[in-house]
Formats: sequence, structure tokens, C-alpha cells
Amino acid sequence: MTYARGVRLDDLQDDFVVRLKHSDAAGVIFFPNAFQVEQEFFERWLESGGMTLRGMLDGTHPPTPVVHCEADFRRPVRVGDRLRVRLAAVGIGRTSYTLAWEMSVDGVPAIEVRVRRAALDRTAGSAVELDRDLRAWLESTQRRTAALS
Amino acid sequence: MTYARGVRLDDLQDDFVVRLKHSDAAGVIFFPNAFQVEQEFFERWLESGGMTLRGMLDGTHPPTPVVHCEADFRRPVRVGDRLRVRLAAVGIGRTSYTLAWEMSVDGVPAIEVRVRRAALDRTAGSAVELDRDLRAWLESTQRRTAALS
Amino acid sequence: MTYARGVRLDDLQDDFVVRLKHSDAAGVIFFPNAFQVEQEFFERWLESGGMTLRGMLDGTHPPTPVVHCEADFRRPVRVGDRLRVRLAAVGIGRTSYTLAWEMSVDGVPAIEVRVRRAALDRTAGSAVELDRDLRAWLESTQRRTAALS
Amino acid sequence: MTYARGVRLDDLQDDFVVRLKHSDAAGVIFFPNAFQVEQEFFERWLESGGMTLRGMLDGTHPPTPVVHCEADFRRPVRVGDRLRVRLAAVGIGRTSYTLAWEMSVDGVPAIEVRVRRAALDRTAGSAVELDRDLRAWLESTQRRTAALS
Repeated sequence: MTYARGVRLDDLQDDFVVRLKHSDAAGVIFFPNAFQVEQEFFERWLESGGMTLRGMLDGTHPPTPVVHCEADFRRPVRVGDRLRVRLAAVGIGRTSYTLAWEMSVDGVPAIEVRVRRAALDRTAGSAVELDRDLRAWLESTQRRTAALS
Repeated sequence: MTYARGVRLDDLQDDFVVRLKHSDAAGVIFFPNAFQVEQEFFERWLESGGMTLRGMLDGTHPPTPVVHCEADFRRPVRVGDRLRVRLAAVGIGRTSYTLAWEMSVDGVPAIEVRVRRAALDRTAGSAVELDRDLRAWLESTQRRTAALS
Repeated sequence: MTYARGVRLDDLQDDFVVRLKHSDAAGVIFFPNAFQVEQEFFERWLESGGMTLRGMLDGTHPPTPVVHCEADFRRPVRVGDRLRVRLAAVGIGRTSYTLAWEMSVDGVPAIEVRVRRAALDRTAGSAVELDRDLRAWLESTQRRTAALS
Repeated sequence: MTYARGVRLDDLQDDFVVRLKHSDAAGVIFFPNAFQVEQEFFERWLESGGMTLRGMLDGTHPPTPVVHCEADFRRPVRVGDRLRVRLAAVGIGRTSYTLAWEMSVDGVPAIEVRVRRAALDRTAGSAVELDRDLRAWLESTQRRTAALS
């Protein structure tokens, strides 16, 4: 039952055990927490590409705040369930990008999450072109997954 | 600076002060927390219609878990900002319904949240028709706001 | 069932309805969330004294991060319960202060929370004497509640 | 930078990367989240002993809700910091037990957390003796760590 796992997300997927902190009184994952999971996997994906969220916070890389997010809930996910979280597709625009994640339990789709982030000029507060390193990592990831139309 | 406020949501809108717990290290509201805010206002809206979330949890009313949610983030929202949260439109289906919320700061749109919930037969785990009381409250609310196409 | 309530905490107590977001799969308030509640009431207490947490974040007032916190859980608190949150006692030191809160349901004690915060020199990272305005507000509050030994 | 890690907590310690979701607008871990981390490590410790939190939720094992918790914050912990979380000591009573955790960054103590949980008779709502399996696992753990006085 013990398994190796990287903090980075080199395989673009990993397992994740749902904990009490994710749950609510209905006994399932509290729906906003699907995005908490996405954000954690996003940070690990960044690290696999040689970037860090901390670098985005301290100005080493341009920050890319969330501009749109959505999720579909196909079936209840409970405490103790082992979620397989997989980066399924990538959309790349000039100033923004979208990551699409599939979360499944025992091979059965449970939650789908899509998050679009946009590069921000911290001073001007306006959208800017995606950083070259980030774009390269997105393109590399897209080749290993699928393109979002 | 003190103002009266109901726990119910009789006016279908209310103000809400963003607190440290909603924020993240980027200094703004952590994006999943927009849905936490929605859920709290949803519970207050239910109470204005004579229902309670607790009643959904204990079986008094049929539960309506979230099947889809999405949000658009127009501008950063910071700790101490006073969010005006307004129920803007309602969509009513046979087995599900959608609430659309607008969150603004000083009259400027900041976050839009839409959440679709579906009535569930707890035993069968399948979708069922919306409860009559809930449908009536949705229709009454829709007349006071707008219909989602 | 609608009642007036201030965002500030002028009476040093207020009611608070427990929401789904506070709960976990055991059907009760998830224990770390007792501190989320405390933090929100702390921010409102600050505002009643003419200060804001935002002011602590942006350097207007010296920040006072948490150095110790503890809680006792006397009985389960469920979604829909109305918590009465009361600032019960204040401890004032040279560089730190403690707020003790009592949370009850229908007059029965449910959760007790104590949080100690220390004034910080942001540059040096070391403790400094409490700001004069903050100390005055602590002393005023202590006279209206009780002194922590 | 990739390292093997178990979901269980067989070594009674593990590393943990602080994520955006743990942080607040002060740029550090939001203090209640120290208990979220503790709860996750508690669940992994349970699993190493052959029990699960889910089993406590569904009645396979007697539940042991939190009756007291406390934390000391020695230094700020930031997004991207790698916390070493170590089960440092165990206290065993007749109806309750305490786990003491040390969280450090680069070998420097950062946060100490202690949580006491008590066995509960679900029907009567009163404290009962610790389950034999749980007691055996506590004693085994205590021999590998230290006894809380």
C-alpha cells in the first residue's frame, strides 16, 4: 500500500488520498476543494517544468492568476478514496492558458476540473504575453497530453 | 460603518467582508474560496425560502449536491474589501437548477459564480425531480431576478 | 429570525451560523475551523477598535502574528447551529496579548479558543512592544471582560 | 528533488511542501492550517497502524474526535518551504490520547502541534476506553518516540 511518489509531477498524473479536511457534512469532498486539489497539482506541474509558485509570488516569474475555473462532479468522492489525478489536456493562448484535469476513483471518472490562468504585468495590472519558459513547458506538456480546442 | 444584516438573504443580496481566511500569499482571495462564499450565500438563500441545508443533510428535504460550478475573476479582491454579493439569475430544470451570483467591490464587478445543483434520490443515487417547495422558491426568486437561458 | 448585526464587534460578542464549509464528514465543525472563526472575530474586534487587519498587512499598524493557539471542544457543533461567540477575557503582556473566546450553542459551552499574538518588527523579525493604539484597545476590552491570569 | 514517499507514515515522519492553499495574505501558513496538516498526518499514522479514518467514520472503529489542540509558532513558514513533520511524542490515557508533532524547515523548529483525541461511544455520546487495536498502536508508537508526561 506504500508507493513512491514525487513532489513534482513528472508523469503528469499522481494518486491522491482524500482526507477529512477535504470533506463536508454530506460525507463527500466539499466541492470548492476540488480546486484546492487542482492548485496543488498545478504547483507540482510547475515544479516539474523548472518553475515554482514561490517564484511567481516573489517576482522571479510573471504571476498567472486564475481568470476562469470550472468543475463537473460525476460521482461522490469520499474520505479515504484514492483519487487518480491526471493532466488531460492543455490549451495555450497568447496571454493565458488552460489546464484540464481528470480525477477518477478506481478508473471511474469522478471530477473534471478546468482552470484558465492569465499572465499579468504586476505593475500595470494588465495581461501580458506568456513567459517564454512557461510557454515552452506548456507546449511540451500539450504534446504529451492533448490540445484543448 | 455598522449595518444591519440578516442571516437569511431576504433581499437576495448582502455585503460580505473579505477576511484573512479567504486570502492567499498573493494577497488576494484564494480562488476556490469564491465557491465557499457562494455556498454560504446559497445556504442563506435556502433559509429565506423556509428550507435549510441541515434539512437536506438529515433527509427532511432531498439533497441537491453540486454537479457543475464555474467562476470568472475580473479583478483582484483583497482582505478588507467589502464584497456585494447578489443573486443575479436563476435557471430551473426538471432535476437541476443553477444560481448565478455577481460579486462586486464598490460597484465594480469582481467575481461571477454559477453553480448547478441536482436533486438526488439518496437511496438510488440517481437524479430526481426537484422538490415542490424548492421549485416554488426557485420560481419566486427567478421572478425577482432574471432567467438563465 | 432576521436580526441586526454589525460587521464590527462592538458588543464583544455576536452570533454565527455554522455552515457546510465549516463541517467535515463526521458531521461536525472540522476542528481547525474553530480558529478560522476566531480569526474572523478577531478582525471584527480590531475594527471596533479603529484598526484593521489590512492595516497590519500593509504596514499601517505593526503586524501581530499568532505565536500560540489552543482550543477545547466540549460538545459537537453541527451545520445550522447558531454559535454565540463571546470575547471572554484578555491577557496583556509587553510584546504579546491573548484573547480568550467562548463559543456556545443555546447557552451551553461548546468550544473555547485562546490565541496569543505577538507584535513583530517586520524588518528585524523580532518581537517589539505592543503598539500604543492596540494596547489601549486591549485595556479597554479587558475592563469590559476579564483579565487572563 | 523527486523523492519516494509513502501515503502511510511508516517512519513516523515525512516531508511536506507548503502550498498556496495553506497560505494567507501575510505570505505565511495561515495558522489554523497547521492543524489541517496535523490531521492529514494523523490519518496517515492511523493507516500505518492498520486503521483508517474512514473506518472511524463508518463505525468500524470507535471514533476519536478532537477534545483539545494547541500549537506554537516559532518562525514563519512560507509557500514552497519543505516542512519536515515528525511524530515526536505520544501520551496515552484511559479514554484519550495525545500526539505531539514537530514541524521544522531545514532542521530549524517552526511549528509544534499537540492534539488530544478521546474515544467516543457514538450512541451515548460519552467517553469510552480506547479501542484495543488503537491502544496497541499508540504503545508501539510511544516506544519509538517519547512519552508525553
